[in-house]
Amino acid sequence: MDRRRFVIAASLVAAALAVPEAGAQALPANKLIMQVSDNDPAKWSLALNNAKNVQADLGAQNVAIEIVAYGPGLAMLKADSVAANRIAEAMGAGVKVVACENTMTNQKIAKDDMLAGIGYVKAGVVEIMQKQQAGWAYLRP
Amino acid sequence: MDRRRFVIAASLVAAALAVPEAGAQALPANKLIMQVSDNDPAKWSLALNNAKNVQADLGAQNVAIEIVAYGPGLAMLKADSVAANRIAEAMGAGVKVVACENTMTNQKIAKDDMLAGIGYVKAGVVEIMQKQQAGWAYLRP
Amino acid sequence: MDRRRFVIAASLVAAALAVPEAGAQALPANKLIMQVSDNDPAKWSLALNNAKNVQADLGAQNVAIEIVAYGPGLAMLKADSVAANRIAEAMGAGVKVVACENTMTNQKIAKDDMLAGIGYVKAGVVEIMQKQQAGWAYLRP
Repeated sequence: MDRRRFVIAASLVAAALAVPEAGAQALPANKLIMQVSDNDPAKWSLALNNAKNVQADLGAQNVAIEIVAYGPGLAMLKADSVAANRIAEAMGAGVKVVACENTMTNQKIAKDDMLAGIGYVKAGVVEIMQKQQAGWAYLRP
Repeated sequence: MDRRRFVIAASLVAAALAVPEAGAQALPANKLIMQVSDNDPAKWSLALNNAKNVQADLGAQNVAIEIVAYGPGLAMLKADSVAANRIAEAMGAGVKVVACENTMTNQKIAKDDMLAGIGYVKAGVVEIMQKQQAGWAYLRP
Repeated sequence: MDRRRFVIAASLVAAALAVPEAGAQALPANKLIMQVSDNDPAKWSLALNNAKNVQADLGAQNVAIEIVAYGPGLAMLKADSVAANRIAEAMGAGVKVVACENTMTNQKIAKDDMLAGIGYVKAGVVEIMQKQQAGWAYLRP
């Protein structure tokens, strides 16, 4: 009986330890989800500066960064965005940039109206919530 | 001796596993604490849109959402708030909405001056901090 | 063999339990990292009010609070800041206040231009990210 219960306990320990181990293999330990929800080019610039500084400080390969634009912040990722060049630069440096499809539907905006190369999520807020629950730090510049 | 130490180890494992288990029974896995601290009806509207989108995407029964209004954001929950109808709708859909009593004291506002049906917390910021420490994701629209 | 595997399992449990234990000895259970990134004295005042309310509610010895000023928010910590007196008061009450050196470099500001007694971090955003990853709650007033 002891042996059986020991095996159960050991399996539970192994299962508990396996979860962070698998995550650590797929992504760096530093993970940052950034929110852009203001229609304010100064905020967009700050967000892009923040991402660049984090990569400079930790090394781009040592940190996963994702910028989520939603609500009034969606304008950051439209094809005519004043931040277009810097967003392309950030994506080239490994920053993931995604737009909220719910916001696009509300604002009657199609993917053709958006910057090339960005990603999409169904609901920006759900993305921000789930990333936090998966251990990502949250930044709202 | 082995048996005694085994029982201790097994108890520790069981205790460690019991904590998330108990939490999972009481609340859904998705938990979102939202902050409203701006006296800005556009921000109130964005916060309410965010809550609605999260419920639509995940199913209202699968996510706990609490909106905390404090500081300049307390105005969102006053009886004369322009967002009154939408707040009632959100509460009807299961969103918890609470006001900060510290802010009310500072602004000399009584519960009679507030919307009916909302909840209260002593310190909005402490609520936001403690919810995060209990595993809730944080959103500041 | 059972005994050897038992010892391994017990060691894993002990190691897993040791991590929060060590953290709990060094810092209180409540830990709050606050962001100031707006050049807006009303926001600075709100942040300082928030810190004071948290200390009043939980007891200053029961909560670690750190305010990080970066980007446009760096002005809060300049020598001529309108919040200078209140910042000194907060530091006297145990709140840690730090400025982002990256921002200082960008704005060509030296430590001589800053309030006395504050601390410094190389990159404010990295500080905010790493504190969250160490279990601190995040607040952006």
